Amino acid sequence: MQNKGAILILSGPSGCGKSTLLKEIYKNISNYYFSISTTTRSPRVGEKDGVDYYFVSKDEFEKDIEAGNFLEWAKVHDNYYGTSLKPIVEALNDGKLVIFDIDVQGHKIVRKKLNSQVTSVFITTPTLTILKDRLYSRNSDSSDIIEKRLSNAKEEINSFLEYDYLIINDDLEKSTKEILAIANIARAKTKLFDKESLVGYWSK
Amino acid sequence: MQNKGAILILSGPSGCGKSTLLKEIYKNISNYYFSISTTTRSPRVGEKDGVDYYFVSKDEFEKDIEAGNFLEWAKVHDNYYGTSLKPIVEALNDGKLVIFDIDVQGHKIVRKKLNSQVTSVFITTPTLTILKDRLYSRNSDSSDIIEKRLSNAKEEINSFLEYDYLIINDDLEKSTKEILAIANIARAKTKLFDKESLVGYWSK
Repeated sequence: MQNKGAILILSGPSGCGKSTLLKEIYKNISNYYFSISTTTRSPRVGEKDGVDYYFVSKDEFEKDIEAGNFLEWAKVHDNYYGTSLKPIVEALNDGKLVIFDIDVQGHKIVRKKLNSQVTSVFITTPTLTILKDRLYSRNSDSSDIIEKRLSNAKEEINSFLEYDYLIINDDLEKSTKEILAIANIARAKTKLFDKESLVGYWSK
Repeated sequence: MQNKGAILILSGPSGCGKSTLLKEIYKNISNYYFSISTTTRSPRVGEKDGVDYYFVSKDEFEKDIEAGNFLEWAKVHDNYYGTSLKPIVEALNDGKLVIFDIDVQGHKIVRKKLNSQVTSVFITTPTLTILKDRLYSRNSDSSDIIEKRLSNAKEEINSFLEYDYLIINDDLEKSTKEILAIANIARAKTKLFDKESLVGYWSK
């Protein structure tokens, strides 16, 4: 049997340690494809096209919506954000593990559209207080932005049951072991296999 | 949050390599409890009570059925086989990973009764021919028994989609990595967490 492509979705509030766990996946897992979002917002200092985002014009984005080229998209304030379907489908056909770092809304849509291929994990700090401490101590955002992030986090935690796995990130070693385990078995989901062809091949 | 108990079910035809993978779990996973079945059949040479099975009389077994003490049971030919509920519940309350080596019918019942706690994996050889070769080459069963096992296997493979994961055991190193990954994240299933208490604890 051929190796199957699969989708791994990571969600969790800013400050939960998601980026650190993503790095562990990149270091330890082979044959993955990290999904890059497309946006109409301007690049911030240091952001690169094709690395952080695909930066496109509003016109291009709207044409792609019309053409049905997005797996999911949303308009946030005045900017569009979305995930192009084509590179995802290509990576899946190549047997890759396609990794998404998206929010609760994005997860809901991808899950709905590509359910049998998705394994998803919600990552969180043990408590809101710890999240707050982390966000303030890393000193990279204004308190307005931090309070906005905390209020989003309070909302998003309510959706954890829509995910397959929950990582309560209180111990980096334990969490790393868990995220690598999840990534390592995402391609072994029975739902990825077509019953008729598997049983047919097996019975020969 | 407290560490949750969880259930890991392994099924697969005799000869698929399940026992070898079980040994890898015992070597590498801590805090597990291997479920031992109860039976009314006589111990075979070398079998020990409380290790291979709990051996009981037909009377005792039937009293336990009456009392609702079994998680699942079946009568095969003239003998009863079953899983007592009490040690399972105790091990789950202790936060243990409860491991079952049971067949497709047993999986169906345990899944139905304790669904939110179950992670299950179906293990198989890449093909029926390979299974046949393995069973004949290990030279431990009569050809009557082997043919019976092969015919059971042909039946059981049809149920693989009822399981969470499929291990096609063609490479012991890869399969070991997969079974340990599955065992390592069985306790991270979101369904194990009570939403109200998790969100309540988290928001403090």
